[in-house]
Amino acid sequence: MKRGSPELEINLQELAAQLHACVTRLFPICRSITGDGVRETLSILSETVALDIHNVPSGAQVLDWTIPNEWNIRDAWIKDASGQRVIDFRQSNLHVLNYSTPVKRTMSLEALKPHLFTLPEQPDRIPYRTSYYVENWGFCLSHAQFEALPQGDYEVCIDATLAPGNLCYGEQLISGGTDEEILISCHICHPSMANDNLSGMAVAVHLARHLQALSEVGALRYSYRFLFIPAAIGSIAWLSRNPEVIPRIRHGLVLACLGDSGAHTYKRSRRGNTEVDRAAADILKHEPHSAIRDFSPYGYDERQYCSPGFNLPMGRLTRTPNGEFTQYHTDADNLEFVKPEQLAKSLLTCFDILQLLERNRRYLNQKPYGEPQLGKYGLYSNTGGSTSSPARQLALLWVLSLSDGEHSLLDICQLAELPFAEIANAADALAQVGLLTEA
Amino acid sequence: MKRGSPELEINLQELAAQLHACVTRLFPICRSITGDGVRETLSILSETVALDIHNVPSGAQVLDWTIPNEWNIRDAWIKDASGQRVIDFRQSNLHVLNYSTPVKRTMSLEALKPHLFTLPEQPDRIPYRTSYYVENWGFCLSHAQFEALPQGDYEVCIDATLAPGNLCYGEQLISGGTDEEILISCHICHPSMANDNLSGMAVAVHLARHLQALSEVGALRYSYRFLFIPAAIGSIAWLSRNPEVIPRIRHGLVLACLGDSGAHTYKRSRRGNTEVDRAAADILKHEPHSAIRDFSPYGYDERQYCSPGFNLPMGRLTRTPNGEFTQYHTDADNLEFVKPEQLAKSLLTCFDILQLLERNRRYLNQKPYGEPQLGKYGLYSNTGGSTSSPARQLALLWVLSLSDGEHSLLDICQLAELPFAEIANAADALAQVGLLTEA
Amino acid sequence: MKRGSPELEINLQELAAQLHACVTRLFPICRSITGDGVRETLSILSETVALDIHNVPSGAQVLDWTIPNEWNIRDAWIKDASGQRVIDFRQSNLHVLNYSTPVKRTMSLEALKPHLFTLPEQPDRIPYRTSYYVENWGFCLSHAQFEALPQGDYEVCIDATLAPGNLCYGEQLISGGTDEEILISCHICHPSMANDNLSGMAVAVHLARHLQALSEVGALRYSYRFLFIPAAIGSIAWLSRNPEVIPRIRHGLVLACLGDSGAHTYKRSRRGNTEVDRAAADILKHEPHSAIRDFSPYGYDERQYCSPGFNLPMGRLTRTPNGEFTQYHTDADNLEFVKPEQLAKSLLTCFDILQLLERNRRYLNQKPYGEPQLGKYGLYSNTGGSTSSPARQLALLWVLSLSDGEHSLLDICQLAELPFAEIANAADALAQVGLLTEA
Repeated sequence: MKRGSPELEINLQELAAQLHACVTRLFPICRSITGDGVRETLSILSETVALDIHNVPSGAQVLDWTIPNEWNIRDAWIKDASGQRVIDFRQSNLHVLNYSTPVKRTMSLEALKPHLFTLPEQPDRIPYRTSYYVENWGFCLSHAQFEALPQGDYEVCIDATLAPGNLCYGEQLISGGTDEEILISCHICHPSMANDNLSGMAVAVHLARHLQALSEVGALRYSYRFLFIPAAIGSIAWLSRNPEVIPRIRHGLVLACLGDSGAHTYKRSRRGNTEVDRAAADILKHEPHSAIRDFSPYGYDERQYCSPGFNLPMGRLTRTPNGEFTQYHTDADNLEFVKPEQLAKSLLTCFDILQLLERNRRYLNQKPYGEPQLGKYGLYSNTGGSTSSPARQLALLWVLSLSDGEHSLLDICQLAELPFAEIANAADALAQVGLLTEA
Repeated sequence: MKRGSPELEINLQELAAQLHACVTRLFPICRSITGDGVRETLSILSETVALDIHNVPSGAQVLDWTIPNEWNIRDAWIKDASGQRVIDFRQSNLHVLNYSTPVKRTMSLEALKPHLFTLPEQPDRIPYRTSYYVENWGFCLSHAQFEALPQGDYEVCIDATLAPGNLCYGEQLISGGTDEEILISCHICHPSMANDNLSGMAVAVHLARHLQALSEVGALRYSYRFLFIPAAIGSIAWLSRNPEVIPRIRHGLVLACLGDSGAHTYKRSRRGNTEVDRAAADILKHEPHSAIRDFSPYGYDERQYCSPGFNLPMGRLTRTPNGEFTQYHTDADNLEFVKPEQLAKSLLTCFDILQLLERNRRYLNQKPYGEPQLGKYGLYSNTGGSTSSPARQLALLWVLSLSDGEHSLLDICQLAELPFAEIANAADALAQVGLLTEA
Repeated sequence: MKRGSPELEINLQELAAQLHACVTRLFPICRSITGDGVRETLSILSETVALDIHNVPSGAQVLDWTIPNEWNIRDAWIKDASGQRVIDFRQSNLHVLNYSTPVKRTMSLEALKPHLFTLPEQPDRIPYRTSYYVENWGFCLSHAQFEALPQGDYEVCIDATLAPGNLCYGEQLISGGTDEEILISCHICHPSMANDNLSGMAVAVHLARHLQALSEVGALRYSYRFLFIPAAIGSIAWLSRNPEVIPRIRHGLVLACLGDSGAHTYKRSRRGNTEVDRAAADILKHEPHSAIRDFSPYGYDERQYCSPGFNLPMGRLTRTPNGEFTQYHTDADNLEFVKPEQLAKSLLTCFDILQLLERNRRYLNQKPYGEPQLGKYGLYSNTGGSTSSPARQLALLWVLSLSDGEHSLLDICQLAELPFAEIANAADALAQVGLLTEA
């Protein structure tokens, strides 16, 4: 899993193109938390890595929740008196309140208004709205469209079904050297929205592809589990059905919103100082304008993974967080908003965090009394007296000094103020000559 | 005890007037650590809430101290050669060194000088000085008066008695739902000094009156004990005689100097991070220019309550602290220096701190695995997808996330950066539907 | 050990002169990690305090290291074709790569070049270089000299021996009231270099002299062990041979580079918050421009004392640290670079740190319930009411408040923000009247 190793000699331009193509292909599909849009999406993702598709039937109890009926939609419109579609699902799947019950009737503008959702503060944008757990129907439209609607009668039609079926999600387990797992999760339930969260899906599935390749050559320490799930109900369903997996999760990341122009923001796990929290902080400190923020119980599926009963050591990586870019949950979160190179760089940042976790260990100095005579082991320069010691030799001394079973390599790199890779390389060299053993 | 509840729908102007009237009525009395001035003061305070008056006889051993003889004074003067009173106790009771032994003699100015106390750096003010535990007599006068005294003989008279008697203090216990107590203490031993500490006495006695009313309708969780005591020897006497009460004290406040124009300063308990320390900090962070400072073993009766053997969880609330306003311990600490509205606002700040303590609890989330489906319980908005969640819903999520038995509501409000009341209201709502139980 | 006590009524000018004279006398000797230069140096130091001289034979195993052969040098030169010495050991003992094997041959400039060491960035200075553990020979010269060497043949001669012998070091134990020890260590292996580390040797030996005098009058709490050792191999040898002493070491200091014009820099022990770390910080906070830095495993013998197996509570005091002044390890680290007054002030700073350690104790307040009535014990001013309490009385209150067995006097002085001596004096006064006992 070493970046720079042959497996990951990634061509950034090529990766960027692959990721954006993935987003582009998935963009038109009308997804929701259930339904055929999810199935089609999982099927396309399976072309990159073979996903197991799980079905959870409507009515099943998952933790405190019940799997809802499956929603499928074929068409929807509002027609004016002349029979012309003034709002048309075929133009944007955001026009329908997601999970709307079927409706077909003619009604006055006044009667229709409670079913119309707009964004007055962004009058040209169509908002994305949902009503999963309370039966309702409605249309979303730009406030400009809304204001241009003349009085009169309108025919409204939502040709949808809400009926017993299944909630679907995709899962892949990539085997590493141990059954300790790193969990990577992204949500897949939003319709035509590029950053939130096709970006996360594209990055996750290509990350899985690269890890799969490393797994095949035996280069992974951890096993990796990828989840492609509808938000909230999907992670709740998975958590409910996998009690035996949960104790094996050592670290995890929720991925979302990885395509916009902003720098990365990492949100800490509820525990606040887990290894993945510290690994992400160590990687992001090299990225200008990146930010680390504390856990809050609002956001994506970290809400479920980090709920107090599970309290998993999982953080979240985004670029600009949910709700903090004006395009969020509008039709402006589109294919232009998502930049190919940003997607690729996010994938590499994920890799760097995972690589740090892969290499981070605790060691025991086998010659802890005084310094070992490093020259004997071929690890020291021969002529003494120079003003400064090169970073490589400092790294050896730091690793020896702090390999007392209490400090991980990540602890050491932070105390030494040296790059993690320098410290990890020093540990490898010391372990090779028998001066370190794993704690 | 909820502020804003009918019991505390206080008219600020009316309260301000009551408090200043209380200070005004008590101002002329010549108090000391013992004597009739204390008795008269406690009698007046008893008109507002019925105080138990305790007497501790002279010579009684209280911890490392001995109750001194009782001091009473009728008159005192310095007369010049012409028989005119140049210093007159009837003009200001500060003119006598508090606890002076009786004296009547004629002496030269030079012989008198060691018995005269002035404030050269504030030449127009009369200082307040005491000599409780070493027998001495003296007069306090302005430096200007002192410098105007011509050479010659003076007749000095202090018509006082120092004789076996009693130390008196007042106490009231207001019953709450448990016998866990909050102790409120103020000193009552200063003569005509409005801020130090008639302000504290006025605020305390009216605070007791309001808490008494809440007690009568069963609205208190804690029991409240109010002490009106001479400084140092009074708290030492009370601590010495109430060993069985001390283990029940959960929180406490020493009140002093609450009438000047300054913002509040809260001084932490010796422990430094008790619940009352954190509650006061949470309330004061909303008050501009307010300050929190660490414990120091110098000040008012917190010196005794927080001595290492007792180490009680008690802080101190003042406006400008002792010694930090130029009027301190001079005749300029008078009725004009104390502002009615400041007194009233201090009472409300005390209430807010106590209300926070009343409502601060630890809960256990009863559905800790994943988020509960709040909609089922009528606690969630129905249409999803908006950019932001209102504070009320965030508060629900925060309380659920952190109700693990380790975090109090105060902890949660600080991590959530939401007002305490918002968090406490959310906890009430969650407890009502069974999602929380008390830890 | 009280500074200001008769024993230490030191005349700063006299001390400064003594210390610089010591450096001056030792300067010409060609030292290394073994050999006669070390013996001569220890013999001169023994004139000030009687050192025990220890010999460790070549080939002895000390921890992970082996004592090397003993190196002695008589003469060395490079002669040009005309037979003139262009590089001459008699002019500067830095000209020889320290520990060079013997050589005598004629060779071309090109063949010689790999054996010539210069400092191109400081072209007029001769660097100091060593090759202790890899056999090599060489000359150090200024880059200007190097560039002026014409092509041609040169005769090179290093008249040295490398043969079985001994590693020598000096040690002195000064007895105090207990066998708990403070270890003071300095290295003695550098040739003509005034700051690094004749300054440390001079300060250490005169510090030992003063402590010896205090020992003789029974004024020391701790025992003090002084080590004068070759760097790295010397401390390793001592640590290897003294396992029974190590558990008795309570605090320690490595001394080096104490003569330059810079302010003091204290480097913390590996543990980072030991008593000596805190004592040094408390003393240095009064010195402008002084600095405290965290431990790093690069530097002087703290590398060995603080290796993870020993992890001794030892810090390091220098002025400008190794490698951070341009004269470091060049012939510019000479007698002018080292200032007499700086040497003397460093000795006093060491004294102050040691004095703090001598006086720092934990006490138990014997009257912890309420304040004791200090007036009864003659420890309180008689007239009350003043605005402020003098530092001496505040110190009494702080010591009483925090003498709970958990806080040392150093803890108390930091919380009280009072000078350590004020707190220690208060503790002495309280102990004298029985209000404190040692915890």
